[in-house]
Amino acid sequence: MARIAYVNGHYQDLRDASVNIEDRGYQFADGVYEVCEIRDGKIVDFARHMARLQRSLGELRIAMPMPLSALLIVLREVVRRNRVGYGIVYLQVTRGVARRDHGFPPAGVKPSLVVTARPLSFAKNQDTAAHGIKVITHPENRWPRVDIKSVALLPNVLAKQAAREQGAYEAWYVDADGYVTEGASSNAWIVTTEGRVVTRSAATGILAGITRAVLIEALAALQLRFEERPFTPQEAHDAAEAFVTASSQIVMPVVAIDGQPVGDGKPGKTTRRLREEFHRFSSFS
Amino acid sequence: MARIAYVNGHYQDLRDASVNIEDRGYQFADGVYEVCEIRDGKIVDFARHMARLQRSLGELRIAMPMPLSALLIVLREVVRRNRVGYGIVYLQVTRGVARRDHGFPPAGVKPSLVVTARPLSFAKNQDTAAHGIKVITHPENRWPRVDIKSVALLPNVLAKQAAREQGAYEAWYVDADGYVTEGASSNAWIVTTEGRVVTRSAATGILAGITRAVLIEALAALQLRFEERPFTPQEAHDAAEAFVTASSQIVMPVVAIDGQPVGDGKPGKTTRRLREEFHRFSSFS
Repeated sequence: MARIAYVNGHYQDLRDASVNIEDRGYQFADGVYEVCEIRDGKIVDFARHMARLQRSLGELRIAMPMPLSALLIVLREVVRRNRVGYGIVYLQVTRGVARRDHGFPPAGVKPSLVVTARPLSFAKNQDTAAHGIKVITHPENRWPRVDIKSVALLPNVLAKQAAREQGAYEAWYVDADGYVTEGASSNAWIVTTEGRVVTRSAATGILAGITRAVLIEALAALQLRFEERPFTPQEAHDAAEAFVTASSQIVMPVVAIDGQPVGDGKPGKTTRRLREEFHRFSSFS
Repeated sequence: MARIAYVNGHYQDLRDASVNIEDRGYQFADGVYEVCEIRDGKIVDFARHMARLQRSLGELRIAMPMPLSALLIVLREVVRRNRVGYGIVYLQVTRGVARRDHGFPPAGVKPSLVVTARPLSFAKNQDTAAHGIKVITHPENRWPRVDIKSVALLPNVLAKQAAREQGAYEAWYVDADGYVTEGASSNAWIVTTEGRVVTRSAATGILAGITRAVLIEALAALQLRFEERPFTPQEAHDAAEAFVTASSQIVMPVVAIDGQPVGDGKPGKTTRRLREEFHRFSSFS
């Protein structure tokens, strides 16, 4: 089945879906994106993703390409045309097409909007979760505005590739003070031996993850102890459990960091419970 | 006249020149670029630009899209088709088109190559140089791998826009130690009251500019005193002259920094001389 994408007003075969070479997303990484999980054909936590999208765009002073209500229709249509039951929908907004010049283009240049969707294998993701993933640590080397979900992802690409080449799935950035900030495409968590669930504050150094935010609400509802503070790789090694959160992963157990097991080297029970219960706290659009 | 671009084997009207939305340049800023000056229809310092391109690609492990000899033919053809006597040629290479995934795509995915060219007004650039440009200072907030000429330029876009909104043309980044690193799209220089021409070492914190490298050779040939060391904005304020170098600007006088004049607030005589004599030290292809 051909994959279908939405590009600036048109639904088309992904193979033909293109943007101008002077799209500022291509020449300057001047754009932002969101990835939402799809479950039973529904968009998970749409409102939160759109609030973050609007914040990212606002920080860059890029206009919303269309009202949220219209955007929801487009996302649903792309999901429908790609027959995605379980999977992800990807949305990218850039500052549009203009003659190459670093500064913002003249008024009237419209932002570009691209939407794709694709099914994922639920069984495969569950299997990955059953075994857990390995992570490596990597020196933090991104710019400080990681709170903006921009497509300037080259550092993340290199960190992810470094992880892959070391037999791991994710890279955890470690800042100059020795604390884990986040993963190259996920937020980082530990569960201490006292049962406290710990992740870094979103105030600095990380992207405010949507799955992270929903999980914090879930922790409260489940009466689990939550601490919002940075932790070091050593604390993570010594923790009972570790996991990452991301829209495409939800709660994914981490069983090794830099080749050393976390806890007993198996997915932890709190992590498994959070993965199972997560969607009770999500919204579906 | 329609502008003509080269995209992955085809010369086409720029308005129709496009890349797939899953080009990694668009989704991940996973690519690099070069800009060469064109003089009398010739490419200035082609060999040096290509050496830097190969270094950038090597650092990212992206393959060269074609041999240098073929690339020269393409660049010349784009220059010719756009009838560029004086102007710039722009070249971008990305890791190619692949299903979205941070890590490198499977072997066999070919890099994308895009080339554009456009005339600039020599008279206008000379007029700008006659008056000099204003710069602002801006906290360094890019990732440390600015030695790679990548398209992950969002920080540069924002710095350039900040400069424009303050009535300036360029932003000089200032690092945590208080030293100027470079401009958002240029290298930064001063001429001290003792006549020493100063710019930062390319070993850390900056891109190794081609115009910078040629100018260093020119300084030796012209028997001007050269110091390769960092300088502070205060030193720049107190300097006799300041200027920036970039392929599209060559040597461009800086007459004010953060609203304060440099020297007597006019383009300096050493700067003007270097601008006039620069191309004696260039190669033309």
